[in-house]
Amino acid sequence: MSEWVDLRHHGDRDVAPGLVDLAVNVRQGAPPGWLGDVVREAVGDLSAYPDGDRARAAVAGRHGRDADEVLLTAGAAEAFVLLARVLRPRRAVVVHPQFTEPEAALLAAGHRVERVVLSGAFTLDPGLVPEDADLVMVGNPTNPTSVLHSGESLRSLVRPGRTLVVDEAFADCVPGEPESLASLSLPGLVVIRSLTKTWGLAGLRVGYVLADAPTIARLAEAQPLWAVSTPALAAAEACMSSRAHAETETWARQMAVEREYLVAGLRALGAHVVPDPQASFVCVRLPAGRDSSAGSVGSERPLHVRLALRAKGFAVRRGDTFPGLGEDWIRVAVRDPGTSDAFLEALAATMKTSPTR
Amino acid sequence: MSEWVDLRHHGDRDVAPGLVDLAVNVRQGAPPGWLGDVVREAVGDLSAYPDGDRARAAVAGRHGRDADEVLLTAGAAEAFVLLARVLRPRRAVVVHPQFTEPEAALLAAGHRVERVVLSGAFTLDPGLVPEDADLVMVGNPTNPTSVLHSGESLRSLVRPGRTLVVDEAFADCVPGEPESLASLSLPGLVVIRSLTKTWGLAGLRVGYVLADAPTIARLAEAQPLWAVSTPALAAAEACMSSRAHAETETWARQMAVEREYLVAGLRALGAHVVPDPQASFVCVRLPAGRDSSAGSVGSERPLHVRLALRAKGFAVRRGDTFPGLGEDWIRVAVRDPGTSDAFLEALAATMKTSPTR
Repeated sequence: MSEWVDLRHHGDRDVAPGLVDLAVNVRQGAPPGWLGDVVREAVGDLSAYPDGDRARAAVAGRHGRDADEVLLTAGAAEAFVLLARVLRPRRAVVVHPQFTEPEAALLAAGHRVERVVLSGAFTLDPGLVPEDADLVMVGNPTNPTSVLHSGESLRSLVRPGRTLVVDEAFADCVPGEPESLASLSLPGLVVIRSLTKTWGLAGLRVGYVLADAPTIARLAEAQPLWAVSTPALAAAEACMSSRAHAETETWARQMAVEREYLVAGLRALGAHVVPDPQASFVCVRLPAGRDSSAGSVGSERPLHVRLALRAKGFAVRRGDTFPGLGEDWIRVAVRDPGTSDAFLEALAATMKTSPTR
Repeated sequence: MSEWVDLRHHGDRDVAPGLVDLAVNVRQGAPPGWLGDVVREAVGDLSAYPDGDRARAAVAGRHGRDADEVLLTAGAAEAFVLLARVLRPRRAVVVHPQFTEPEAALLAAGHRVERVVLSGAFTLDPGLVPEDADLVMVGNPTNPTSVLHSGESLRSLVRPGRTLVVDEAFADCVPGEPESLASLSLPGLVVIRSLTKTWGLAGLRVGYVLADAPTIARLAEAQPLWAVSTPALAAAEACMSSRAHAETETWARQMAVEREYLVAGLRALGAHVVPDPQASFVCVRLPAGRDSSAGSVGSERPLHVRLALRAKGFAVRRGDTFPGLGEDWIRVAVRDPGTSDAFLEALAATMKTSPTR
């Protein structure tokens, strides 16, 4: 039996004013200037109802899909809700650890959910997924582990009569996106993408679903009228340009260097980092405390570390609300080396002090 | 039996580039400058996930409600979808003619819907609503008739065990809002408001629901995470200010004068205008044609008029997709007297010509 965790806890709740935010999975600061301009210019079109045709065509073109295989949504979160409402799974399986919103949406819609919980290096073992599962949800690269599953292993999960949902919210963290299934048109394959993370658009609510045309039609039928705002549609269209694509690639390569720096620093402190991270965050298991006199060392120490980090001005994402992780796990966003240095210094200081209860 | 009509047809589909838009129920042009500034400034906050607390408090304050009696939504359209998903009516009644989205949302969620179709002056007769209806949906002032029902007659529909949903999307067209139930906290009373129409924000997707706290909690549970964007929340908060309120009142009084002008012109042409219009549009029955040789005069002539108006550059909202109206009805937005003059001239010319088939 899986223990109860708050699936509705997200990184934004771990942040407070004044803290350096290593908890939320988005680029720091505002969207790039050209994209901010696109959104501001859309204000002039606000009196008309949104018209998603151009954004839809742009997304389709970017992934080599037909326009009727694309649905713009008010963020990936809406996509999960629409899927949960439209699908009628007899056996729904969510592969964990992963973003908890897909499971939360399924539960809220009244579905039963089974968990396949990965361990070790958290790489996907397709053999763990029950053969008769008719809905399988998996993230790639995965939040919070930062693991990138192979496109081949994901593809091997496609079956007649099964819907495979791949959450690719962080796909553009990976230069070239070699394991993405976004361009693959297969019955029952659903890919969810977000513009939130890379483009600093968390507040704008925009993402999209790529799937076979009949599935898209069913999702569209369940979607509220005019669900995606005009500024969000304008941003989506702009983010599909070749200029934006080139900018993403450049950012992803730079982020990878910064990630290596952070990982090396964490490992030097004796922390375990999930191997081969591929997204804009890393998943970390803190070393067990050696100085506590309490019996429940494993659960006391990391909570203490998180609180001590907060006291030093750093917010990290707690790991214990992710099924398959626990109190001794945290998720840390990749930032510039200066920020990572300051964080690593705070973490080192924290780990030297004892719990003070 | 009610005949089939396309409930998903909306005024935006009657408009085409180059036409003077009298079909869509929004203020012309962009939002006012100060509000455009608020939305543009919100672009700087886009990298964070939306936080609705301030907007919620502002809405609550405006209507003298508690914050837990308020839910911000991505337009009124989302509110109808949430209600349809959360409520489990045994006998759902929609009072027509009215905005068709509430019924469409109920049908899409698998509910059966009964229609109470008003006629004559289209004023609400509470006696027509079945006593055991446990869900009643009504608009006030009503789209497309522009009729304002009395708050007293609406209140008389409140019952233990019944949810009464009043769509007040156009309430701020009425100076002082004397018949609004927005400030009335009663179990089972749900009021839906929009910021779309008055503020030129159709493209931003923002509205709100006012209801008893338990109902709001159920709707919030069904709402996708972060459903309302940061710019939309900023706009909602700004539109609750006393400055915005004063601006609305001024606009509503001016619009009433322009409406009188339009109505007088229409009546001078022999058209029937639904009496005592109170919203930013009027509902018009075109006179029957006298010159057609076809047997189906009543349905040929108005279609001809609409097409002829399009040829002359004017888009009006067709009436035949509203249950209770028909081919010979149109809905016309109130605009400045110059625009109304040009429209009336085109209409007069159109009514003098014969159908050409």
